[in-house]
Parts: sequence; C-alpha cells; structure tokens
Amino acid sequence: MGLFFEDFQPGDTRETGSVTVTREAILAFAREFDPQPFHIDDEAAKRSPYGGLIASGWHTAALCMKLVVGMLGPDSGSLGSPGVDELRWLRPVRPGDELTVHIEVVEAIPSRSKPDRGLVKLRYTVRNQNREDVMTMIALGLVLRRAPSIY
Amino acid sequence: MGLFFEDFQPGDTRETGSVTVTREAILAFAREFDPQPFHIDDEAAKRSPYGGLIASGWHTAALCMKLVVGMLGPDSGSLGSPGVDELRWLRPVRPGDELTVHIEVVEAIPSRSKPDRGLVKLRYTVRNQNREDVMTMIALGLVLRRAPSIY
Repeated sequence: MGLFFEDFQPGDTRETGSVTVTREAILAFAREFDPQPFHIDDEAAKRSPYGGLIASGWHTAALCMKLVVGMLGPDSGSLGSPGVDELRWLRPVRPGDELTVHIEVVEAIPSRSKPDRGLVKLRYTVRNQNREDVMTMIALGLVLRRAPSIY
Repeated sequence: MGLFFEDFQPGDTRETGSVTVTREAILAFAREFDPQPFHIDDEAAKRSPYGGLIASGWHTAALCMKLVVGMLGPDSGSLGSPGVDELRWLRPVRPGDELTVHIEVVEAIPSRSKPDRGLVKLRYTVRNQNREDVMTMIALGLVLRRAPSIY
C-alpha cells in the first residue's frame, strides 16, 4: 500500500531509492526540452562555465519526481500538487551521477472543506553519490486520508 | 542571434511560440518520470478529481522550458539558472492542449563581481488554447552581456 495523509507527520524524514543519470538520458531529455549548448553539445559544454555536459535542471526535477513517486508507492493517496516553492539548482548533475532524494515533512494541514484529505509541505533535497546537495525545493501535495471519510 | 542581458528590461513582455501536448507525449513522459494513475491510466484518471488523463506538472514545466529556449534563440547569453520561485500548477493540461508562454521581465540585476553578466528574474505564465493560465513561475537566469567585457 502507498502512503496517505496520516503517514506525513511534521519532522518525519524519508529517503527514496536512487537513479543513475546516463549521458544518453541527459542528451535525450535536453534535445527534447532544453537544447542549450551545455546540455547537448560536448565541445560547447567544455567551453561553458560548467566545463562539461550537465543535465537540464528540469531533468533533475523530473528524476526527483520519479524517485518520490516510487517512495509514495502504488495506490497512494496522492491527488497531485498545487506547486513548489524555492526550487534551487545548487550543483551541476553530470553523466553517471547517482541521485537520491531526502524528504522532510515541513507541515501537514488537514483540509477544512474536505475532511478526506490534507495538504502536505515537503522539503526535497536531491543528493549525488558524493552526498552533495544538487537540488532543493519545497513541494506542496494534496493527499487523501487512509480512512474513508464518514462525512 | 539569441538574447543577451541587455535584451531584458524590467517591464518588457514577450510571447513564445506554441507547442501541442499529445496524448502519446503525456503518457511517455509520465511513464518515465511521474507514473501516478491520473497521468498514465485512462480509467483511473476518469475516477480521479481530474476526470481524465492530465499531463505531469513536470512535463508542463519542461515544455515551458522548451518554448523559452526557442525564444532565447541560438547562441544566446544564457548561462543557466540558479532556480525558480512560486511555481504553481493552476489548471490541468490535457491531451491536445496547445501551450504558449507569456514572459514578463521582473528584474534585471547586473553582477557586482562579474561585469560580463547579470541575473534576470522572469515571470512565466503558461497558457492553453483558451487563454487560461495553466502554470506560473518566477524563473531566475544568469545571462551574459552582448558586448565583450573590457575587464
């Protein structure tokens, strides 16, 4: 069973699984969505401030979502998200990097109008294989309660 | 030629081109990065609060980037981004929707330490074919000046 609103208590922390970012995946994502030279062209990337090919920040964000959805589990209470705050790309993600997400529950607010659900505010920290933070964000999520509502 | 720091003046607005979001693209992105039922399963999506299949919000964000990169043009001064603030998913994006991005320059701050570049703060508003806002965010960007630095 997946996670529900009751499973998010402020201060709780969780770790997701990991994913390795291949050169091929970096190029495929960037060619489709973010074809800036430092994401798609080795030579141009070497001359850029990054000194080599780096993943699109949106690719890192999408991989963060993949890891979080894996942690939520199948048939979780997730109803989607109204948005995120303070997304920061702190370090480049390079071919071969292995990413994991550290999750901290910041707030869990029961809905006033809909007693079967609540809003969770989660701090995601994406780290590479050297335990360096590469991306952080505050993610909002609407999540159903596990127990059926009596209302 | 692409856009450089001098091309971003506070208050300026620009419109990107458009992109149509196909059902196949929604499914492919979500299966790879965000396999929640309302993104990948027609029947589950019908039973969800969305009433049918919707795109992952990260897919919408990636398509926004695609449109913005197209507007920046080839060989622009873009050096990447330190992050985004207040990303909000306001309405579902559904198969067949056509998205465009309205861009407003909020701030353009010359770098104190590196006179060849500056930081721009841009408000992106992603709209569908009915001129409804589907996503907004404040994006930060590091951008080179057009003229070579004399320093």
